[in-house]
Amino acid sequence: MLTDFKNHIIEKLSMLKDGKLLIAISGGIDSVVLAHLCQNMNLNFSLAHCNFKLRAEESDKDEAFVMDLAKDLNVEVFIQNFDTTAYATEHKRSIQMAARELRYDWFKELAAQLNFDYILTAHHADDNLETFLINFTRGTGLNGLTGIPTVNDNVVRPLLPFSRIQIETFAKENQITWREDASNASRKYLRNKLRHEVVPILKEINPQLLDSFQNTLSHLNDTQLVVEEQLFDFKKRAIISEDDLGTTYKISEFKAVKNPKAYLFELFKNYGFTAWNDVVELLDAQSGKLVKSNSHRLIKHREFLILTTLNHSDRCEKSLLISEYDDEVKTPFGVLSFNNVDEISETSNLIVYVDKDLLKFPLELRLWKEGDVFQPIGMKGKKKISKYLKDEKASLVEKENTWVLTSDNKVVWVIGKRADERFKVKSKTKKIFKVTI
Amino acid sequence: MLTDFKNHIIEKLSMLKDGKLLIAISGGIDSVVLAHLCQNMNLNFSLAHCNFKLRAEESDKDEAFVMDLAKDLNVEVFIQNFDTTAYATEHKRSIQMAARELRYDWFKELAAQLNFDYILTAHHADDNLETFLINFTRGTGLNGLTGIPTVNDNVVRPLLPFSRIQIETFAKENQITWREDASNASRKYLRNKLRHEVVPILKEINPQLLDSFQNTLSHLNDTQLVVEEQLFDFKKRAIISEDDLGTTYKISEFKAVKNPKAYLFELFKNYGFTAWNDVVELLDAQSGKLVKSNSHRLIKHREFLILTTLNHSDRCEKSLLISEYDDEVKTPFGVLSFNNVDEISETSNLIVYVDKDLLKFPLELRLWKEGDVFQPIGMKGKKKISKYLKDEKASLVEKENTWVLTSDNKVVWVIGKRADERFKVKSKTKKIFKVTI
Repeated sequence: MLTDFKNHIIEKLSMLKDGKLLIAISGGIDSVVLAHLCQNMNLNFSLAHCNFKLRAEESDKDEAFVMDLAKDLNVEVFIQNFDTTAYATEHKRSIQMAARELRYDWFKELAAQLNFDYILTAHHADDNLETFLINFTRGTGLNGLTGIPTVNDNVVRPLLPFSRIQIETFAKENQITWREDASNASRKYLRNKLRHEVVPILKEINPQLLDSFQNTLSHLNDTQLVVEEQLFDFKKRAIISEDDLGTTYKISEFKAVKNPKAYLFELFKNYGFTAWNDVVELLDAQSGKLVKSNSHRLIKHREFLILTTLNHSDRCEKSLLISEYDDEVKTPFGVLSFNNVDEISETSNLIVYVDKDLLKFPLELRLWKEGDVFQPIGMKGKKKISKYLKDEKASLVEKENTWVLTSDNKVVWVIGKRADERFKVKSKTKKIFKVTI
Repeated sequence: MLTDFKNHIIEKLSMLKDGKLLIAISGGIDSVVLAHLCQNMNLNFSLAHCNFKLRAEESDKDEAFVMDLAKDLNVEVFIQNFDTTAYATEHKRSIQMAARELRYDWFKELAAQLNFDYILTAHHADDNLETFLINFTRGTGLNGLTGIPTVNDNVVRPLLPFSRIQIETFAKENQITWREDASNASRKYLRNKLRHEVVPILKEINPQLLDSFQNTLSHLNDTQLVVEEQLFDFKKRAIISEDDLGTTYKISEFKAVKNPKAYLFELFKNYGFTAWNDVVELLDAQSGKLVKSNSHRLIKHREFLILTTLNHSDRCEKSLLISEYDDEVKTPFGVLSFNNVDEISETSNLIVYVDKDLLKFPLELRLWKEGDVFQPIGMKGKKKISKYLKDEKASLVEKENTWVLTSDNKVVWVIGKRADERFKVKSKTKKIFKVTI
């Protein structure tokens, strides 16, 4: 693959030669190489850099580096500062998700206002492989295994067929300088663990892993298109109404196909259902029977299946396990994110800091239940959570929606309300673990 | 998952309670546990053990262990000896493939003759995960990611939902004894590498990996069924004739679907094609144009696409890379297998022994080309391969079909003909590497 880099990337980029381009640039090696490549090919491009203010001085140095680069390349540069933490808190997002949303929203706004034809990002084949493995370890379906799209809407990723090594080699051969991303180690440890511990072994097993992976992705994407075509036709036949209240499907159409379960899964997988056997049984159930996910429900109503969103109080009561390597977990009440930090900085009832060495992984996240006790931070004795909620004058709805984070069945945090004394950060604490809603 | 093992396996096995069962038993923990479980549930079963004679004394001890077990359980046992090496040589199979074919052929023969309803094998969830990862690292499509089937024909795998740990726990709790499989380390190093180095990290990342994996497999299998249903309908429309000479498809049907490439891939992926863009271009090519794989060709003929097998001399000339962890590689001339061995045993021109420390991986396997030289074993000087083939009075066909195995571009073996002096095993050799056609 390596020897092909220059010709191959020239071919990719030359398809963009008539467009007005906006390059999303962090200052890291990938996006800096992309900018140099576009410069070498005399493309018409500008740079857009987000300063998420997440790493204080380092973030500002990245910004300064990008400003200098723009001057060197003699191109226009846009810089935007974001208060990522505030946005994340306000919109109940993890820091990563908040940063992603802020970034793409801004790029698209810029592109619309200033008539950029394409937004270019510097994702490459190793990013893609890591994403595949993350989705695979979490559990997924075909759509989670089809990779990062080369093009979606006006976002284009010309480096996607190339490896991290090819990009590094090009950077070194051309004396390109970049900023090392100091945040990798702390922010994305799941990805880093795969990158440093799993991928090297897979590459040892198959020296041409990335090539094989590209072929696999190409095949899976083709298959996905066959499935989508089939589903499109099926939906045309099966859906009889679709409005704010829900979508209504004819049960007879599910019964007409060879494997109803496959169609039920493909149609409803994006609504959080997990009890697929129960969903299948709905087809033959009494009218009025239903199956719930965390966000939706499917109701059998005479000869129809109706998909609607769930009332808040209807949510099902599942527990989630959290490994040491999770950096974020989607929950029914928003996204919980986990970070190793050096010190306690901002505090609120949406954040808790605990002594990591006292935790036993996997942690469990669940609704509180009768009999749960904890030691409210600052107090000497234990207290029942039921008593605590009563003393706090929590409403019925609030009581029904109170979650706890536990370690080895001991409450670490009554989420959004009160931390536990036993896990708090003390002067002798070595590793501080920060949990944020 | 663990706590569910007993109830869950009872449920699985009770579905077999009216059948006459044949358990494929190696003497290893998985199949021995399966036999005990069937005994506990009073199922009607016999044992069938293959002695592949691959590990001398160890193979015979396995056989003796199974005989004793049958006596203890008071059930019928069938034992069959195989000359696996001879079969592999004769049918150009790797040792593993030979053993698999011999085993299943014999089980099916036994089942047919003695009226067994089901053949039970002891594959479990970890086997399944390893198979997934092997296929993934080699590159595959959806069908390579759908796992080992729970049931195919009359072969049933009741332990497939359970983990290796669950089986071990059950064995220990019930004081079950088994034979450790000493061959694992030497024979299946690719699988072992994944088992010991990759899977533990994935399980650390997601403590519920095997559960997530079962869900992923279930979803992918459902999706696969949707694809198959779609293809079945498509083939009904597109195929106008199918006979010994080939299969003829109407090009208009490919053009009627949204993504012709996806259908071309799904229909022709099992025939070795890799140049999918060329295949797509055939739809609009001049009559007479064709695309070849190692075994087949697709010809555009007026408004039709015709799939036929390839003449021997038509094969394409690709090179294959072989990693240190490959145990077998499919080639156009059969399967090459690789083993670490302790000593030189049988010899033939289909086997070569080399000093592993002199090899530089990946090795390359390719057709010889003009300019290739080697040092025929036993000779002092180098010789051109063209000269060697001429001196050997090789026919034109033989010349065209001579392959070489190379290390760092140096010939290690003119395959099936002559080894190279430089890589031969000497008295000081520490690691002997055996390559077999």
